[in-house]
Amino acid sequence: MTEIIKPRPISGFPEWLPSEKILEEKMLGTIRKTFERFGFSPLETPAVERNEVLTSKGGNEKEIYTLARLAGTPEDDAKEYSLHFDLTVPLARYVAQHFQRLSFPFRRYQIQKVWRGERPQDGRFREFYQCDIDIIGEENLSLLADAEIPSVIHQIFSAMEIGDFIIKINNRKILSGFLQFHNIPAERHNDILRTIDKVEKIGREKVERELSSVIGLPGECVTGLLDLTSLQGTREEVLMRLESLDYGDLFRTGVFELREVVENMEGLGVPSGNYRIDSSVARGLDYYTGTVYETNLKAHPDIGSICSGGRFDNLAGNFIKKRLPGVGISIGLTRLFSRLLAAGIVKPGASTVSNILVTILDRSYLKEYLAIATQLRGMGLNAEVYTEPKALKKQLQFASKKGFKMVLIAGENEFRERKAKIKNMESGEEREVSLDRLGEEASLLLSPG
Amino acid sequence: MTEIIKPRPISGFPEWLPSEKILEEKMLGTIRKTFERFGFSPLETPAVERNEVLTSKGGNEKEIYTLARLAGTPEDDAKEYSLHFDLTVPLARYVAQHFQRLSFPFRRYQIQKVWRGERPQDGRFREFYQCDIDIIGEENLSLLADAEIPSVIHQIFSAMEIGDFIIKINNRKILSGFLQFHNIPAERHNDILRTIDKVEKIGREKVERELSSVIGLPGECVTGLLDLTSLQGTREEVLMRLESLDYGDLFRTGVFELREVVENMEGLGVPSGNYRIDSSVARGLDYYTGTVYETNLKAHPDIGSICSGGRFDNLAGNFIKKRLPGVGISIGLTRLFSRLLAAGIVKPGASTVSNILVTILDRSYLKEYLAIATQLRGMGLNAEVYTEPKALKKQLQFASKKGFKMVLIAGENEFRERKAKIKNMESGEEREVSLDRLGEEASLLLSPG
Repeated sequence: MTEIIKPRPISGFPEWLPSEKILEEKMLGTIRKTFERFGFSPLETPAVERNEVLTSKGGNEKEIYTLARLAGTPEDDAKEYSLHFDLTVPLARYVAQHFQRLSFPFRRYQIQKVWRGERPQDGRFREFYQCDIDIIGEENLSLLADAEIPSVIHQIFSAMEIGDFIIKINNRKILSGFLQFHNIPAERHNDILRTIDKVEKIGREKVERELSSVIGLPGECVTGLLDLTSLQGTREEVLMRLESLDYGDLFRTGVFELREVVENMEGLGVPSGNYRIDSSVARGLDYYTGTVYETNLKAHPDIGSICSGGRFDNLAGNFIKKRLPGVGISIGLTRLFSRLLAAGIVKPGASTVSNILVTILDRSYLKEYLAIATQLRGMGLNAEVYTEPKALKKQLQFASKKGFKMVLIAGENEFRERKAKIKNMESGEEREVSLDRLGEEASLLLSPG
Repeated sequence: MTEIIKPRPISGFPEWLPSEKILEEKMLGTIRKTFERFGFSPLETPAVERNEVLTSKGGNEKEIYTLARLAGTPEDDAKEYSLHFDLTVPLARYVAQHFQRLSFPFRRYQIQKVWRGERPQDGRFREFYQCDIDIIGEENLSLLADAEIPSVIHQIFSAMEIGDFIIKINNRKILSGFLQFHNIPAERHNDILRTIDKVEKIGREKVERELSSVIGLPGECVTGLLDLTSLQGTREEVLMRLESLDYGDLFRTGVFELREVVENMEGLGVPSGNYRIDSSVARGLDYYTGTVYETNLKAHPDIGSICSGGRFDNLAGNFIKKRLPGVGISIGLTRLFSRLLAAGIVKPGASTVSNILVTILDRSYLKEYLAIATQLRGMGLNAEVYTEPKALKKQLQFASKKGFKMVLIAGENEFRERKAKIKNMESGEEREVSLDRLGEEASLLLSPG
């Protein structure tokens, strides 16, 4: 007898039930379609990159999964490759490798799984979807690109219908300029920005204390910095307040760029209720150099940013001697989806993508049932045939459990009159349709009352 | 100065240019949509499975990529997991693990990358897409399920427009029954079936010789076997010939099942020109026990089968004490796509999914250009804005290189009259559209003459 290996989930590698996967696919579809609306074209890179590519920016090697053969062979090259941990390093490598064959500005979207060797006990995902877009320029990229990004964010999250959201926009040069003006050495900027990022979590007072005592900023600098990062008001009030401050050239450039970006956003249809300038947004990363974005669900700030990104000076300096500035965003969909599920913001419905189940009442009419299913499919409906010889009651229970909206029922009487019954599984209502005019019922069947 | 790491491709891990990836995505979209038409719902399993799961059927451990951290940690569990090499073992594990939450017959499709540690020098892919569907029954599954599969294959390859194709259908019990009737021990069946599979490649005579001399089949058995596997004629002629042969019960069951499947295919709209019974199709695998399918492009037999599969007795015997019979097929899309590209059957076109490029002639009207792009997007068009301050000529060169079908051009004169020019990049023809009635031009813009 075969020994049974009891299947168990692997911590950090999520997998969904059909009803959940259907929801995730719907979100992925919305993201993909919106990316394409803005002229981003699909791109896919292998799951693995050479180790030298993945570690070129000094990544965390403990979190990188490298390959090995389960049974090694002498000529094995698997250990030279590792699974990618994001889609930015692969993009940089791709653009450098295929530079001569690409047109710039280069717009691509990439929706792929990435892998990170997080400690499973931290409850983090070790395999998850990232959905990225980037616009890459050759030598230069106009700030118009930065203005288009919030419009993409706005359209995606409006279409997802997961509640009201706010896009927070800032320019890294504002904070960097302020710190530079106060002669704070560059190597300490990241620590400071990371501390400021905590204002929403731990409050202004604690951040103030940390900035003076732990990081050792002078008092006036702490006050100026926190005033700056807590600016409130209409877009124009905040911009004018920023323009009234004099913290040197870099700061002024940041404010200038910020105005240009938000002013161009106007034509792009992002309503003022869906974005605000937030000078505290820093995206604690060396990577971004200009515009930065974060997105929050208004009713669920605890979920954190659901879509972030920004402007960077040079994408692929490790791989090519060309300056390739760009701007982009990333949606960590697996994390977002699992949080939305847990919070009940999205709810699994049907376990099927079918519109209709064709039941089989009398197996002497098999060919007729199959012909009906074929006709329904030709009309653009997703139709499943109940293949098993079971009582109609069992077939209807199956339809109900899986969440079919409609079932088609026909027996000897119906076939004699070239008719069939369509039962709406939600209302229980039954209607008769003519089998010879099924095509004319298409719109009715596609949106059952 | 940063040291440059020259990016190089990794053998066996294909990656496409944008124009190619757009074609691959189109094929993936056709497959996905057709799978859903037949009531298959999306499913996705993690890229990794536990080693004990992957090797439960005695897989080739040399071809399995297992994980390790690039920098090891003591508590490391990575080495317990490996990348899946197909989507069938993960499906078996999934169905067993979530058995109580699934409804049977269970229809799922799964389109994911799989990884195999092939020797790169053999020119095989080590990372590739598989597109699988399976219908899994609980204890039983009617032959209606087997009849639906060729209809799925037919719809997919008709929609792909990659040339005329033929679905070859057979039942494994016919060959197994014949061999059993001749008292050939079961452990030699696979060798014999594999040899017969070579008829098309090396010819009947060589196969005859191999069957007698290498495998040692008696002469009359070789003749009977080759007569059986080379049966030709109409569907009815072949079925009646098979029904006239007496090679015992298993053989007869196979012929009976085959007739039931092909007769039910009638109602499912598979034209007789697109399928034939081929008693030589064996799918040299222990896995299949009944109906088997192969699909060939008529003009390109060298590509081999582009979609294969069949009926199996028990999906998940290693993981659950339930008999779960099923039927399914798999399309190895990466291999198919690369062969179609190489043979020129599919040809890369545009490097963009955009319908239209909005050029910028006069940057003092930036907001107007952006508003136009927003309007076009709202109409359902994929629109890209040319963000950079370059001469119109450069912008048109960009549009032409990337393969945009249309560009929108407007300057001071046009804006004064609330108009814009739409240039068809293929015909060179220019038309004027009213900016205030852009919506009314939607259908025109969506299908440019």
